[in-house]
Amino acid sequence: MKTLTIALILVISPLSPCADEGMWTFDNPPLKQWKERYGFEPPPGWLDHVRLASVRLNGGGSGSFVSPDGLVMTNQHVGRSQVQKLSTPQRDLIKHGFYAASREDELPCPDLEVNVLVSYEDVSQRVHGAVQPGASDKDANAQRKAEMAAIEKESAEKTGLRSEVVTLYSGGEYWLYRFKKYTDVRLVFVPEEQIAYFGGDYDNFTYPRYCLDITFFRVYEGGRAARTDHYFKWSQNGPSEGELVVISGYPGSTNRLMTLAQLKYHRDVGNPLQMQVWTSRHDALVRFAALGTEQARRASAARLSLSNSIKRLVGQQAGLMNPRILGKKEEEEKALRSEVERRPELKRDFGSAWDQIAAAYATLPDKAPRIAFSDLAPSRLGSIALNLVRYVEEIRKPNERRYEEFRDSKLDSFKFGLLSPAPIYKDLEEAVLTAWLEQGSKILGLQDPFVRAALEGKSPAETAKWAVGGTKLTDVAARKALLEGGAEAVARSDDPMIVLARRVDPIMRELRAWREENIQSIEIGAGEKLAKARFAVYGKTIYSDATSSLRLGYGTVSSYEEGTTLVPFRTTFYGLYDRAASFGEKAPFNLPQRYKDKQADFDLATPLNFVYTADTIGGNSGSPVINRAAEIVGINFDSNLQKLPNRYLYIEESEGSRAIAIHSAAIIEVLKKIYGAAKLVSELTEQ
Amino acid sequence: MKTLTIALILVISPLSPCADEGMWTFDNPPLKQWKERYGFEPPPGWLDHVRLASVRLNGGGSGSFVSPDGLVMTNQHVGRSQVQKLSTPQRDLIKHGFYAASREDELPCPDLEVNVLVSYEDVSQRVHGAVQPGASDKDANAQRKAEMAAIEKESAEKTGLRSEVVTLYSGGEYWLYRFKKYTDVRLVFVPEEQIAYFGGDYDNFTYPRYCLDITFFRVYEGGRAARTDHYFKWSQNGPSEGELVVISGYPGSTNRLMTLAQLKYHRDVGNPLQMQVWTSRHDALVRFAALGTEQARRASAARLSLSNSIKRLVGQQAGLMNPRILGKKEEEEKALRSEVERRPELKRDFGSAWDQIAAAYATLPDKAPRIAFSDLAPSRLGSIALNLVRYVEEIRKPNERRYEEFRDSKLDSFKFGLLSPAPIYKDLEEAVLTAWLEQGSKILGLQDPFVRAALEGKSPAETAKWAVGGTKLTDVAARKALLEGGAEAVARSDDPMIVLARRVDPIMRELRAWREENIQSIEIGAGEKLAKARFAVYGKTIYSDATSSLRLGYGTVSSYEEGTTLVPFRTTFYGLYDRAASFGEKAPFNLPQRYKDKQADFDLATPLNFVYTADTIGGNSGSPVINRAAEIVGINFDSNLQKLPNRYLYIEESEGSRAIAIHSAAIIEVLKKIYGAAKLVSELTEQ
Repeated sequence: MKTLTIALILVISPLSPCADEGMWTFDNPPLKQWKERYGFEPPPGWLDHVRLASVRLNGGGSGSFVSPDGLVMTNQHVGRSQVQKLSTPQRDLIKHGFYAASREDELPCPDLEVNVLVSYEDVSQRVHGAVQPGASDKDANAQRKAEMAAIEKESAEKTGLRSEVVTLYSGGEYWLYRFKKYTDVRLVFVPEEQIAYFGGDYDNFTYPRYCLDITFFRVYEGGRAARTDHYFKWSQNGPSEGELVVISGYPGSTNRLMTLAQLKYHRDVGNPLQMQVWTSRHDALVRFAALGTEQARRASAARLSLSNSIKRLVGQQAGLMNPRILGKKEEEEKALRSEVERRPELKRDFGSAWDQIAAAYATLPDKAPRIAFSDLAPSRLGSIALNLVRYVEEIRKPNERRYEEFRDSKLDSFKFGLLSPAPIYKDLEEAVLTAWLEQGSKILGLQDPFVRAALEGKSPAETAKWAVGGTKLTDVAARKALLEGGAEAVARSDDPMIVLARRVDPIMRELRAWREENIQSIEIGAGEKLAKARFAVYGKTIYSDATSSLRLGYGTVSSYEEGTTLVPFRTTFYGLYDRAASFGEKAPFNLPQRYKDKQADFDLATPLNFVYTADTIGGNSGSPVINRAAEIVGINFDSNLQKLPNRYLYIEESEGSRAIAIHSAAIIEVLKKIYGAAKLVSELTEQ
Repeated sequence: MKTLTIALILVISPLSPCADEGMWTFDNPPLKQWKERYGFEPPPGWLDHVRLASVRLNGGGSGSFVSPDGLVMTNQHVGRSQVQKLSTPQRDLIKHGFYAASREDELPCPDLEVNVLVSYEDVSQRVHGAVQPGASDKDANAQRKAEMAAIEKESAEKTGLRSEVVTLYSGGEYWLYRFKKYTDVRLVFVPEEQIAYFGGDYDNFTYPRYCLDITFFRVYEGGRAARTDHYFKWSQNGPSEGELVVISGYPGSTNRLMTLAQLKYHRDVGNPLQMQVWTSRHDALVRFAALGTEQARRASAARLSLSNSIKRLVGQQAGLMNPRILGKKEEEEKALRSEVERRPELKRDFGSAWDQIAAAYATLPDKAPRIAFSDLAPSRLGSIALNLVRYVEEIRKPNERRYEEFRDSKLDSFKFGLLSPAPIYKDLEEAVLTAWLEQGSKILGLQDPFVRAALEGKSPAETAKWAVGGTKLTDVAARKALLEGGAEAVARSDDPMIVLARRVDPIMRELRAWREENIQSIEIGAGEKLAKARFAVYGKTIYSDATSSLRLGYGTVSSYEEGTTLVPFRTTFYGLYDRAASFGEKAPFNLPQRYKDKQADFDLATPLNFVYTADTIGGNSGSPVINRAAEIVGINFDSNLQKLPNRYLYIEESEGSRAIAIHSAAIIEVLKKIYGAAKLVSELTEQ
């Protein structure tokens, strides 16, 4: 085959590859790569400006300020749950879209938080120093956690800012990040989902692509649009082929520093189990949605989110199953390990780390199904009840000994979510909880402690009917009363969902404790060793795995080869109409009516989506894609299939791995020509 | 991975597979499958009508009559060499297209033949019976060939029709096919190559696709448009998704009945060698084309044809390298072989066939490079000279002992080609011949008999300069003089190309004789045994490998899955404009000027190309795609990549294997709106 492959390459001119790897923290930006590869040296203040114009949305997603008046741009699929919560059967904003022509019309979101990273500092020494010499893994873990909680609390008290200690390089470094937080956030514009998510599940994670996956919110302070001095200006031209672009956002999670033992666990146990959990939840929602239009509307947000997760997991797992990809990981590990072996000092301090992790992970497969299925979280009411039961217990402990999510630094956000006025649909809740308990019983067996505690001999359907049917937790006031009533109120509550949560909580605590002691504390201890070994061998030329903290990526806008042909770096509106017409407007390839009515009014050659080589992952959704002048040329919303295994390993651009963005010109063209949103266009472009 | 795959299928609704396998001769049409699977029972006369409206073009391609006045439709890439021969530097029809608004404007083609299969009869008994009991493989082969030549000659003398004995089922059957032949063929319409071959090499063998790969010719008899009673009417709607379509045409060659020994030879020796031959020829043309616009024009036909062959071979070889595909072939062979072993009679008569073939093929690798490179054919002048040298020698032998191509039944077509007035470019010829002799010397070495005879100690460049520079064979009269002067004229000719051909001819004859004796005669003898064994075990439920004889295929027009998304069953003109705009009109993704000027005049939602599941292969280019009413719904022009390994094995539709056609509505829309060819549209649609 070698001869043949070479021959083909001779016939078809190859694209030159270049590796734009990395999700870089702002304290360690890829300045060297930018300069060497692109001759780009950002002017003073450029990085701070980019950081302060970038935002995180709660629930996991990125966005950016795009006007001095608090206008935030993100993806429709990031803002979707807010849009759904603002919808009613009579006013379905997901289906019909929304545009507030004036400030007064902007719709306050029930529970959306927008965060801006205003400062960061290295607290590694303090956290590492908190571990007493000779401490066991378990104790060391507790000592680190206590120190992190203390740092956060001090910072919050001193600055009034949301303060988080983030773990980087698997514990090699710890940084204190401080955020300015906006909680009065209002919906300004969202298009019909049909166009935001054109092609549905089918086209998700594919390219060429034709989606207008955008939403605009506005942050308010003191009842007025917030003044946001740092915002991105707009490039109406968008990017040219081959142009350098930078992306700033909050990639969720990568596992590139994992050891082989961890990767093999994911491949053989973790991912298949996760797939079981998600497909079981997804199937329940599909069955519920099939009952009618309103049921479909109610189930849609969760269903789409799960489909997305499932499709992504399939791509990631395909990477782990690929011997070539795992082979690269083997090489990487072998190289570092033999270098550590070679240097006596490194060997003494770090040499045991791989085997420690392997030994810990060997104990996980037995427990993993229990950990996965012992939960009520698939039901929103179940989750609320569990949170209440846990909260009143945890809050009695000193700050540094609590579960992380109940640390003082996180309580505001916790309460903001818990007391959200967003609607909860009991029919949907009952269906979901029934299916979940049925699946749990099937997988774990009726003698399993969680199953016995949850069901107490009843059927899943009876249990769900009783718990959902009788609960008052749909009412924000009822939640508030329990929250304020504390341990006593929760203990004597006869709300059946609370009763159910009280029954299962001890079992879940036990599993969590087991996991923290036997897996996480070892993982963190050994992870820190591995990080230090890496620093010692390679220097700080590497980036940390993604951990939902702010990162910079970069790359070029570029076409790629697939199946012997070229995939263009951008698509146009012509392609949108082609795909709709090719499928005879069959869903999910149908167009919103106004796109059909107004087709003649706008320029179909306008670019719609484009691809670029930056290293991104889930969580980067909604990230601004900017040029050297820090102007918006696009907004990131997806990756193609080729890229999915990049959870575990950077996939070379020459393999066709690409991030996908909406082109800045497309946004202006539709806002103007399809939605008559002239005022919004002025706000974006006339700054 | 299994769990994950299943999960994905649950999320994305699967398409139901159904096997539309087979290239069926008209004596053995797939009536059973049509009835059972599609409820289609063609009315009396339907099959004859389809056969008589289908045509073969010399040079290897299919077409159909589409009006009662001799109008023939085929692909631009099938008619391309004629269009190029009709072009001059001043009037480049390849680049600018052509439309004859009236009959007088139609351009007579230099050497195009159109053939219609008017009758066929089984002559298996006569051919099989001609082999004397106990004859050696070599003698048996000669006896069969002699009988075939005799049958053809008798038929031609009796009917005046072109008569060919075709070998089916690797010699299991022999059929006499009689053709009505048209040699006055004129060009009516051809579009710009930019649109016929939009996307160039890149998009070749891919889908979605946006090509208008059509040409119209007209056959004349006695100086007037021929009356063609059997022609296909036009369906302006084209096909619906899921509709049954039938394709009638001349698929060139498949190797599905090959034994494993033969397949492995192709994989390990034959295909890599073929690739070497083609890429060396292709590279020489690319170098020549780089010299200038006119050089590029002169080289383009051969260059495109070679790129196409190379890309197809890569796909076919990928199939042979695929363990799953070769595994299926192993299973097939094992099943037939063990059934033959089990039945004593079959074992006695046929059991040795596999080993005979394996033994013969074991001797081939040593000789294969000599056979591949001992030739002058890459040069058109070299080919003419060799043909003259051979002709005068062969014509002196009795009909049944000549090389096949010089049998009486083929002489008319031979002379038609030899005396073609099509232009020959000496600069191109010299470049091609030099490169070819250089490559041959490199591969075979300077001591090789062919190389020594060709070069006689000179360099390839000197030899080519001398032979091409001094030859008069560009002149049709010079060829005619040698043809008519016979052996004596050729023997005493001092035309250097003839001298060169005389030097190498003995070596080529020797190699040909070796191959006929040691490979082909065994292959045919053993192939006949295998065919008989197959008939004995499976009955005549199978179809013969393609051998450039008329076949029926069928399938449904249908979308397919690729990379987790759906590929639509059709594309539209929107998609053409999308791809052009996406690439910024960069060649080969640029549009002819008139498509830009007239975009507003026509309906971009008009379907352009579509895919369907019929079993086709090279040679089917230009085949009519018809519905149950025998109306044209499209014209076949390509296959997608997934389908290419089908040279060796039918690739299931569920794997995304599809044939690609131009939609009938697209043809009408552009003829009307872009080319102002109202008269041609009337001829097609108002019958």
